Amino acid sequence: MDRLTAHVRTFAEERDWQQFHTPKNLAMALAGEVGELLAEFQWLTPEQAAGVMADPEAGARVKAEIGDVMVYLTRLADVLGVDLVEAALTKLDEVATRYPVDRAKGSADKR
Amino acid sequence: MDRLTAHVRTFAEERDWQQFHTPKNLAMALAGEVGELLAEFQWLTPEQAAGVMADPEAGARVKAEIGDVMVYLTRLADVLGVDLVEAALTKLDEVATRYPVDRAKGSADKR
Amino acid sequence: MDRLTAHVRTFAEERDWQQFHTPKNLAMALAGEVGELLAEFQWLTPEQAAGVMADPEAGARVKAEIGDVMVYLTRLADVLGVDLVEAALTKLDEVATRYPVDRAKGSADKR
Amino acid sequence: MDRLTAHVRTFAEERDWQQFHTPKNLAMALAGEVGELLAEFQWLTPEQAAGVMADPEAGARVKAEIGDVMVYLTRLADVLGVDLVEAALTKLDEVATRYPVDRAKGSADKR
Repeated sequence: MDRLTAHVRTFAEERDWQQFHTPKNLAMALAGEVGELLAEFQWLTPEQAAGVMADPEAGARVKAEIGDVMVYLTRLADVLGVDLVEAALTKLDEVATRYPVDRAKGSADKR
Repeated sequence: MDRLTAHVRTFAEERDWQQFHTPKNLAMALAGEVGELLAEFQWLTPEQAAGVMADPEAGARVKAEIGDVMVYLTRLADVLGVDLVEAALTKLDEVATRYPVDRAKGSADKR
Repeated sequence: MDRLTAHVRTFAEERDWQQFHTPKNLAMALAGEVGELLAEFQWLTPEQAAGVMADPEAGARVKAEIGDVMVYLTRLADVLGVDLVEAALTKLDEVATRYPVDRAKGSADKR
Repeated sequence: MDRLTAHVRTFAEERDWQQFHTPKNLAMALAGEVGELLAEFQWLTPEQAAGVMADPEAGARVKAEIGDVMVYLTRLADVLGVDLVEAALTKLDEVATRYPVDRAKGSADKR
Protein backbone atom coordinates (compact mmCIF):
# COMPACT_ATOMS: atom_id res chain seq x y z
CA MET A 1 0.00 0.00 0.00
CA ASP A 2 2.83 2.46 0.84
CA ARG A 3 4.46 1.44 -2.42
CA LEU A 4 1.26 2.26 -4.31
CA THR A 5 0.95 5.66 -2.62
CA ALA A 6 4.55 6.49 -3.56
CA HIS A 7 4.05 5.20 -7.08
CA VAL A 8 0.94 7.30 -7.68
CA ARG A 9 2.68 10.36 -6.25
CA THR A 10 5.72 9.97 -8.49
CA PHE A 11 3.45 9.37 -11.45
CA ALA A 12 1.70 12.69 -10.87
CA GLU A 13 4.87 14.64 -10.10
CA GLU A 14 6.69 13.42 -13.21
CA ARG A 15 3.82 14.78 -15.30
CA ASP A 16 3.45 18.05 -13.35
CA TRP A 17 -0.11 17.06 -12.54
CA GLN A 18 0.01 18.32 -8.95
CA GLN A 19 -1.62 21.53 -10.19
CA PHE A 20 -4.71 19.54 -11.24
CA HIS A 21 -4.69 17.27 -8.20
CA THR A 22 -6.58 19.47 -5.79
CA PRO A 23 -8.89 17.73 -3.32
CA LYS A 24 -12.00 18.96 -5.17
CA ASN A 25 -10.74 17.78 -8.55
CA LEU A 26 -9.59 14.41 -7.22
CA ALA A 27 -12.91 13.84 -5.44
CA MET A 28 -14.68 14.54 -8.74
CA ALA A 29 -12.34 12.22 -10.62
CA LEU A 30 -12.93 9.51 -8.02
CA ALA A 31 -16.69 9.89 -8.45
CA GLY A 32 -16.30 9.77 -12.23
CA GLU A 33 -14.42 6.48 -12.02
CA VAL A 34 -16.99 5.03 -9.63
CA GLY A 35 -19.59 6.00 -12.23
CA GLU A 36 -17.73 3.93 -14.83
CA LEU A 37 -17.61 1.02 -12.39
CA LEU A 38 -21.38 1.28 -11.82
CA ALA A 39 -21.88 1.25 -15.59
CA GLU A 40 -20.31 -2.22 -15.71
CA PHE A 41 -22.99 -3.55 -13.37
CA GLN A 42 -26.08 -1.52 -14.12
CA TRP A 43 -27.86 -3.77 -16.60
CA LEU A 44 -26.74 -7.09 -15.10
CA THR A 45 -29.07 -9.24 -13.05
CA PRO A 46 -27.78 -9.96 -9.54
CA GLU A 47 -26.76 -13.41 -10.82
CA GLN A 48 -24.87 -12.01 -13.82
CA ALA A 49 -23.16 -9.46 -11.58
CA ALA A 50 -22.08 -12.18 -9.15
CA GLY A 51 -20.42 -14.08 -12.00
CA VAL A 52 -18.91 -11.12 -13.82
CA MET A 53 -15.28 -12.04 -13.12
CA ALA A 54 -15.74 -15.38 -14.92
CA ASP A 55 -16.29 -13.45 -18.17
CA PRO A 56 -12.79 -12.56 -19.46
CA GLU A 57 -13.82 -9.31 -21.15
CA ALA A 58 -16.23 -7.96 -18.57
CA GLY A 59 -13.96 -9.19 -15.76
CA ALA A 60 -11.00 -7.31 -17.22
CA ARG A 61 -13.08 -4.14 -17.51
CA VAL A 62 -14.28 -4.43 -13.90
CA LYS A 63 -10.74 -4.98 -12.66
CA ALA A 64 -9.52 -1.96 -14.65
CA GLU A 65 -12.31 0.25 -13.24
CA ILE A 66 -11.55 -0.90 -9.70
CA GLY A 67 -7.91 -0.06 -10.38
CA ASP A 68 -8.90 3.44 -11.54
CA VAL A 69 -11.00 4.02 -8.43
CA MET A 70 -8.16 2.84 -6.20
CA VAL A 71 -5.62 5.08 -7.97
CA TYR A 72 -7.69 8.21 -7.40
CA LEU A 73 -8.62 7.25 -3.85
CA THR A 74 -4.94 6.67 -3.05
CA ARG A 75 -3.99 9.99 -4.60
CA LEU A 76 -6.76 11.91 -2.81
CA ALA A 77 -5.79 10.39 0.54
CA ASP A 78 -2.13 11.21 -0.08
CA VAL A 79 -2.86 14.83 -1.02
CA LEU A 80 -4.95 15.21 2.14
CA GLY A 81 -2.42 13.42 4.35
CA VAL A 82 -4.89 10.65 5.25
CA ASP A 83 -3.69 7.07 5.81
CA LEU A 84 -6.17 5.08 3.75
CA VAL A 85 -5.91 1.76 5.59
CA GLU A 86 -5.92 3.42 9.00
CA ALA A 87 -8.96 5.53 8.06
CA ALA A 88 -10.82 2.39 6.99
CA LEU A 89 -9.89 0.46 10.15
CA THR A 90 -10.96 3.40 12.34
CA LYS A 91 -14.27 3.63 10.51
CA LEU A 92 -14.82 -0.10 10.87
CA ASP A 93 -14.32 0.19 14.63
CA GLU A 94 -16.94 2.93 14.82
CA VAL A 95 -19.41 0.97 12.77
CA ALA A 96 -18.78 -2.11 14.92
CA THR A 97 -19.85 -0.11 17.97
CA ARG A 98 -22.96 1.14 16.22
CA TYR A 99 -23.92 -2.28 14.83
CA PRO A 100 -22.90 -4.86 17.41
CA VAL A 101 -22.99 -8.41 16.11
CA ASP A 102 -25.95 -9.55 18.19
CA ARG A 103 -28.21 -6.72 17.07
CA ALA A 104 -27.07 -6.33 13.46
CA LYS A 105 -27.07 -10.01 12.53
CA GLY A 106 -28.83 -10.59 9.22
CA SER A 107 -30.37 -7.14 9.08
CA ALA A 108 -29.54 -4.41 6.58
CA ASP A 109 -31.60 -1.89 8.48
CA LYS A 110 -29.12 0.85 9.22
CA ARG A 111 -31.56 3.52 10.24
CA MET B 1 -3.91 -4.02 3.30
CA ASP B 2 -4.39 -7.80 3.61
CA ARG B 3 -5.26 -7.22 7.25
CA LEU B 4 -7.91 -4.70 6.23
CA THR B 5 -9.40 -7.08 3.68
CA ALA B 6 -9.61 -9.85 6.27
CA HIS B 7 -11.03 -7.46 8.85
CA VAL B 8 -13.79 -6.21 6.54
CA ARG B 9 -14.63 -9.79 5.56
CA THR B 10 -14.92 -10.97 9.17
CA PHE B 11 -16.96 -7.90 9.98
CA ALA B 12 -19.51 -8.77 7.28
CA GLU B 13 -19.55 -12.49 8.05
CA GLU B 14 -20.13 -11.99 11.77
CA ARG B 15 -23.23 -9.96 10.92
CA ASP B 16 -24.48 -12.32 8.17
CA TRP B 17 -24.22 -9.45 5.73
CA GLN B 18 -22.84 -11.56 2.88
CA GLN B 19 -26.40 -11.80 1.55
CA PHE B 20 -26.46 -8.02 1.05
CA HIS B 21 -22.90 -7.79 -0.21
CA THR B 22 -23.50 -8.57 -3.86
CA PRO B 23 -21.30 -6.75 -6.40
CA LYS B 24 -24.21 -4.55 -7.52
CA ASN B 25 -25.14 -3.58 -3.98
CA LEU B 26 -21.54 -2.90 -2.97
CA ALA B 27 -20.92 -0.80 -6.08
CA MET B 28 -24.00 1.25 -5.18
CA ALA B 29 -22.86 1.61 -1.57
CA LEU B 30 -19.41 2.68 -2.77
CA ALA B 31 -21.00 5.34 -4.98
CA GLY B 32 -23.18 6.48 -2.09
CA GLU B 33 -20.14 6.98 0.14
CA VAL B 34 -18.29 8.83 -2.61
CA GLY B 35 -21.34 11.08 -2.81
CA GLU B 36 -20.97 11.88 0.89
CA LEU B 37 -17.29 12.62 0.34
CA LEU B 38 -18.17 15.00 -2.51
CA ALA B 39 -20.65 16.73 -0.23
CA GLU B 40 -17.79 17.67 2.10
CA PHE B 41 -16.07 19.57 -0.72
CA GLN B 42 -18.88 20.89 -2.89
CA TRP B 43 -19.30 24.40 -1.48
CA LEU B 44 -15.65 24.98 -0.61
CA THR B 45 -13.43 27.20 -2.72
CA PRO B 46 -10.33 25.43 -4.07
CA GLU B 47 -8.36 27.18 -1.30
CA GLN B 48 -10.74 26.05 1.44
CA ALA B 49 -10.70 22.51 0.05
CA ALA B 50 -6.91 22.45 0.04
CA GLY B 51 -6.87 23.40 3.74
CA VAL B 52 -9.75 21.21 4.87
CA MET B 53 -7.63 18.87 7.00
CA ALA B 54 -6.47 21.80 9.16
CA ASP B 55 -10.07 22.23 10.35
CA PRO B 56 -10.56 19.63 13.12
CA GLU B 57 -14.28 19.08 12.49
CA ALA B 58 -14.29 19.12 8.69
CA GLY B 59 -11.00 17.19 8.64
CA ALA B 60 -12.47 14.46 10.83
CA ARG B 61 -15.51 14.21 8.58
CA VAL B 62 -13.38 13.96 5.44
CA LYS B 63 -11.21 11.25 7.02
CA ALA B 64 -14.33 9.31 8.05
CA GLU B 65 -15.81 9.53 4.55
CA ILE B 66 -12.55 8.39 2.99
CA GLY B 67 -12.57 5.49 5.46
CA ASP B 68 -16.12 4.59 4.37
CA VAL B 69 -15.15 4.65 0.70
CA MET B 70 -12.11 2.48 1.38
CA VAL B 71 -14.15 -0.05 3.41
CA TYR B 72 -16.64 -0.59 0.58
CA LEU B 73 -13.96 -0.61 -2.10
CA THR B 74 -12.02 -3.23 -0.12
CA ARG B 75 -15.16 -5.31 0.35
CA LEU B 76 -16.17 -5.08 -3.32
CA ALA B 77 -12.69 -6.08 -4.46
CA ASP B 78 -12.67 -9.01 -2.02
CA VAL B 79 -16.09 -10.27 -3.13
CA LEU B 80 -14.94 -10.09 -6.77
CA GLY B 81 -11.56 -11.68 -6.04
CA VAL B 82 -9.66 -8.60 -7.23
CA ASP B 83 -6.38 -7.56 -5.57
CA LEU B 84 -6.91 -3.84 -5.01
CA VAL B 85 -3.28 -2.74 -4.92
CA GLU B 86 -2.33 -4.94 -7.87
CA ALA B 87 -5.31 -3.63 -9.91
CA ALA B 88 -4.20 -0.06 -9.21
CA LEU B 89 -0.56 -0.73 -10.12
CA THR B 90 -1.60 -2.47 -13.36
CA LYS B 91 -3.83 0.45 -14.25
CA LEU B 92 -1.05 2.91 -13.53
CA ASP B 93 1.25 1.02 -15.90
CA GLU B 94 -1.35 1.23 -18.67
CA VAL B 95 -1.91 4.93 -18.11
CA ALA B 96 1.86 5.50 -18.09
CA THR B 97 2.04 4.02 -21.58
CA ARG B 98 -0.84 6.17 -22.79
CA TYR B 99 0.52 9.38 -21.20
CA PRO B 100 4.30 9.23 -21.41
CA VAL B 101 6.04 11.82 -19.28
CA ASP B 102 7.37 13.91 -22.17
CA ARG B 103 3.98 14.28 -23.85
CA ALA B 104 1.73 14.53 -20.78
CA LYS B 105 3.81 17.03 -18.81
CA GLY B 106 1.66 19.82 -17.43
CA SER B 107 -1.36 18.97 -19.54
CA ALA B 108 -4.68 17.65 -18.28
CA ASP B 109 -5.88 16.96 -21.79
CA LYS B 110 -6.72 13.30 -21.73
CA ARG B 111 -8.68 13.12 -24.94
CA MET C 1 -40.58 23.06 -16.11
CA ASP C 2 -39.93 26.77 -16.89
CA ARG C 3 -41.65 27.59 -13.63
CA LEU C 4 -39.32 25.23 -11.75
CA THR C 5 -36.23 26.76 -13.39
CA ALA C 6 -37.39 30.26 -12.42
CA HIS C 7 -38.27 29.10 -8.92
CA VAL C 8 -34.86 27.52 -8.32
CA ARG C 9 -33.13 30.61 -9.68
CA THR C 10 -35.07 32.98 -7.43
CA PHE C 11 -34.43 30.69 -4.50
CA ALA C 12 -30.66 30.90 -5.04
CA GLU C 13 -30.64 34.63 -5.76
CA GLU C 14 -32.65 35.52 -2.67
CA ARG C 15 -30.02 33.74 -0.57
CA ASP C 16 -27.01 35.15 -2.46
CA TRP C 17 -26.03 31.59 -3.31
CA GLN C 18 -24.98 32.39 -6.90
CA GLN C 19 -21.39 32.64 -5.61
CA PHE C 20 -21.51 28.96 -4.62
CA HIS C 21 -23.44 27.83 -7.69
CA THR C 22 -20.56 27.40 -10.09
CA PRO C 23 -20.83 24.55 -12.61
CA LYS C 24 -18.20 22.49 -10.77
CA ASN C 25 -19.87 22.92 -7.40
CA LEU C 26 -23.33 22.19 -8.77
CA ALA C 27 -22.09 19.06 -10.58
CA MET C 28 -20.60 17.87 -7.29
CA ALA C 29 -23.82 18.64 -5.41
CA LEU C 30 -25.81 16.79 -8.06
CA ALA C 31 -23.55 13.74 -7.66
CA GLY C 32 -23.88 13.97 -3.88
CA GLU C 33 -27.68 13.89 -4.12
CA VAL C 34 -27.57 10.97 -6.55
CA GLY C 35 -25.42 9.20 -3.96
CA GLU C 36 -28.17 9.69 -1.37
CA LEU C 37 -30.71 8.33 -3.85
CA LEU C 38 -28.54 5.25 -4.43
CA ALA C 39 -28.34 4.75 -0.67
CA GLU C 40 -32.12 4.31 -0.59
CA PHE C 41 -31.86 1.37 -2.98
CA GLN C 42 -28.52 -0.25 -2.22
CA TRP C 43 -29.56 -2.97 0.22
CA LEU C 44 -32.97 -3.70 -1.30
CA THR C 45 -33.59 -6.77 -3.41
CA PRO C 46 -34.84 -5.99 -6.92
CA GLU C 47 -38.34 -6.91 -5.68
CA GLN C 48 -38.13 -4.62 -2.65
CA ALA C 49 -36.81 -1.81 -4.85
CA ALA C 50 -39.68 -2.25 -7.31
CA GLY C 51 -42.20 -1.87 -4.45
CA VAL C 52 -40.45 0.93 -2.58
CA MET C 53 -43.11 3.57 -3.28
CA ALA C 54 -45.74 1.44 -1.53
CA ASP C 55 -43.85 1.92 1.73
CA PRO C 56 -44.90 5.34 3.05
CA GLU C 57 -41.60 6.12 4.81
CA ALA C 58 -39.16 4.78 2.21
CA GLY C 59 -41.36 6.13 -0.59
CA ALA C 60 -41.31 9.63 0.91
CA ARG C 61 -37.52 9.47 1.23
CA VAL C 62 -37.10 8.33 -2.38
CA LYS C 63 -39.39 11.11 -3.62
CA ALA C 64 -37.45 13.68 -1.57
CA GLU C 65 -34.12 12.46 -2.96
CA ILE C 66 -35.45 12.56 -6.53
CA GLY C 67 -36.62 16.10 -5.80
CA ASP C 68 -33.12 17.05 -4.60
CA VAL C 69 -31.52 15.59 -7.71
CA MET C 70 -33.98 17.45 -9.93
CA VAL C 71 -33.39 20.76 -8.11
CA TYR C 72 -29.62 20.61 -8.66
CA LEU C 73 -29.94 19.36 -12.23
CA THR C 74 -32.33 22.23 -13.00
CA ARG C 75 -29.99 24.74 -11.40
CA LEU C 76 -26.91 23.38 -13.19
CA ALA C 77 -28.69 23.47 -16.56
CA ASP C 78 -29.88 27.03 -15.89
CA VAL C 79 -26.41 28.25 -14.90
CA LEU C 80 -24.98 26.69 -18.08
CA GLY C 81 -27.80 27.97 -20.29
CA VAL C 82 -28.89 24.45 -21.26
CA ASP C 83 -32.57 23.64 -21.86
CA LEU C 84 -33.02 20.45 -19.85
CA VAL C 85 -35.96 18.98 -21.74
CA GLU C 86 -34.52 19.88 -25.12
CA ALA C 87 -31.14 18.35 -24.16
CA ALA C 88 -32.89 15.12 -23.15
CA LEU C 89 -34.98 14.97 -26.34
CA THR C 90 -31.90 15.61 -28.50
CA LYS C 91 -30.01 12.86 -26.69
CA LEU C 92 -32.92 10.48 -27.11
CA ASP C 93 -32.89 11.10 -30.87
CA GLU C 94 -29.20 10.29 -31.03
CA VAL C 95 -29.60 7.12 -29.01
CA ALA C 96 -32.55 6.10 -31.21
CA THR C 97 -30.24 6.25 -34.24
CA ARG C 98 -27.60 4.20 -32.49
CA TYR C 99 -30.04 1.60 -31.15
CA PRO C 100 -32.75 1.18 -33.78
CA VAL C 101 -35.78 -0.72 -32.53
CA ASP C 102 -35.21 -3.83 -34.64
CA ARG C 103 -31.62 -4.31 -33.51
CA ALA C 104 -31.89 -3.20 -29.87
CA LYS C 105 -35.05 -5.11 -29.00
CA GLY C 106 -34.68 -6.95 -25.70
CA SER C 107 -30.92 -6.48 -25.51
CA ALA C 108 -29.04 -4.39 -22.97
CA ASP C 109 -25.78 -4.82 -24.86
CA LYS C 110 -24.70 -1.29 -25.55
CA ARG C 111 -21.16 -2.00 -26.54
CA MET D 1 -41.96 17.68 -19.48
CA ASP D 2 -44.96 15.33 -19.87
CA ARG D 3 -43.98 14.94 -23.49
CA LEU D 4 -40.46 13.95 -22.47
CA THR D 5 -41.74 11.40 -19.95
CA ALA D 6 -43.99 9.84 -22.60
CA HIS D 7 -41.20 9.90 -25.16
CA VAL D 8 -38.72 8.14 -22.85
CA ARG D 9 -41.35 5.56 -21.93
CA THR D 10 -42.19 4.77 -25.56
CA PHE D 11 -38.50 4.60 -26.33
CA ALA D 12 -37.97 1.93 -23.67
CA GLU D 13 -41.12 -0.01 -24.50
CA GLU D 14 -40.35 -0.19 -28.22
CA ARG D 15 -37.02 -1.81 -27.36
CA ASP D 16 -38.41 -4.14 -24.67
CA TRP D 17 -36.10 -2.47 -22.18
CA GLN D 18 -38.66 -2.41 -19.34
CA GLN D 19 -37.04 -5.62 -18.06
CA PHE D 20 -33.77 -3.71 -17.48
CA HIS D 21 -35.43 -0.56 -16.19
CA THR D 22 -35.83 -1.53 -12.56
CA PRO D 23 -35.41 1.24 -9.97
CA LYS D 24 -32.03 -0.13 -8.84
CA ASN D 25 -30.68 -0.37 -12.38
CA LEU D 26 -31.96 3.07 -13.35
CA ALA D 27 -30.50 4.64 -10.20
CA MET D 28 -27.14 3.08 -11.10
CA ALA D 29 -27.41 4.29 -14.70
CA LEU D 30 -28.27 7.78 -13.45
CA ALA D 31 -25.19 7.77 -11.22
CA GLY D 32 -23.06 6.52 -14.12
CA GLU D 33 -24.20 9.41 -16.31
CA VAL D 34 -23.59 11.92 -13.53
CA GLY D 35 -20.08 10.46 -13.31
CA GLU D 36 -19.56 11.23 -17.01
CA LEU D 37 -20.83 14.78 -16.42
CA LEU D 38 -18.36 15.22 -13.53
CA ALA D 39 -15.58 14.01 -15.81
CA GLU D 40 -16.24 16.98 -18.10
CA PHE D 41 -15.53 19.39 -15.24
CA GLN D 42 -12.98 17.62 -13.07
CA TRP D 43 -9.74 19.12 -14.42
CA LEU D 44 -11.12 22.56 -15.26
CA THR D 45 -10.38 25.57 -13.10
CA PRO D 46 -13.50 27.29 -11.76
CA GLU D 47 -13.03 29.91 -14.49
CA GLN D 48 -12.71 27.34 -17.27
CA ALA D 49 -15.77 25.52 -15.94
CA ALA D 50 -17.79 28.73 -15.90
CA GLY D 51 -16.96 29.31 -19.58
CA VAL D 52 -17.34 25.73 -20.77
CA MET D 53 -20.43 26.36 -22.92
CA ALA D 54 -18.49 28.90 -25.02
CA ASP D 55 -16.26 26.06 -26.24
CA PRO D 56 -18.19 24.34 -29.05
CA GLU D 57 -16.75 20.86 -28.44
CA ALA D 58 -16.76 20.81 -24.65
CA GLY D 59 -20.10 22.64 -24.59
CA ALA D 60 -21.67 20.00 -26.84
CA ARG D 61 -20.33 17.22 -24.61
CA VAL D 62 -21.67 18.88 -21.46
CA LYS D 63 -25.09 19.37 -23.06
CA ALA D 64 -25.13 15.71 -24.16
CA GLU D 65 -24.20 14.51 -20.66
CA ILE D 66 -26.89 16.69 -19.09
CA GLY D 67 -29.33 15.21 -21.59
CA ASP D 68 -28.29 11.69 -20.56
CA VAL D 69 -28.75 12.49 -16.87
CA MET D 70 -32.19 13.99 -17.56
CA VAL D 71 -33.28 10.97 -19.64
CA TYR D 72 -32.48 8.51 -16.83
CA LEU D 73 -33.91 10.76 -14.12
CA THR D 74 -37.14 11.10 -16.13
CA ARG D 75 -37.30 7.35 -16.67
CA LEU D 76 -36.60 6.53 -13.00
CA ALA D 77 -39.27 8.99 -11.83
CA ASP D 78 -41.76 7.54 -14.32
CA VAL D 79 -41.09 3.95 -13.25
CA LEU D 80 -41.56 4.96 -9.60
CA GLY D 81 -44.65 7.06 -10.33
CA VAL D 82 -42.99 10.26 -9.08
CA ASP D 83 -43.79 13.61 -10.69
CA LEU D 84 -40.34 15.09 -11.22
CA VAL D 85 -41.27 18.77 -11.25
CA GLU D 86 -43.66 18.41 -8.33
CA ALA D 87 -41.02 16.50 -6.30
CA ALA D 88 -38.52 19.30 -6.94
CA LEU D 89 -40.99 22.06 -6.02
CA THR D 90 -41.97 20.23 -2.82
CA LYS D 91 -38.33 19.80 -1.89
CA LEU D 92 -37.67 23.48 -2.57
CA ASP D 93 -40.49 24.43 -0.21
CA GLU D 94 -38.99 22.30 2.55
CA VAL D 95 -35.53 23.72 2.05
CA ALA D 96 -36.98 27.25 2.05
CA THR D 97 -38.38 26.58 5.52
CA ARG D 98 -35.06 25.23 6.74
CA TYR D 99 -33.00 28.04 5.22
CA PRO D 100 -35.09 31.21 5.47
CA VAL D 101 -33.74 34.08 3.38
CA ASP D 102 -32.68 36.23 6.32
CA ARG D 103 -30.62 33.51 7.98
CA ALA D 104 -29.21 31.75 4.90
CA LYS D 105 -28.13 34.86 3.00
CA GLY D 106 -24.61 34.46 1.64
CA SER D 107 -23.80 31.40 3.69
CA ALA D 108 -23.20 27.89 2.39
CA ASP D 109 -23.22 26.47 5.88
CA LYS D 110 -25.92 23.85 5.76
CA ARG D 111 -25.12 22.06 8.95
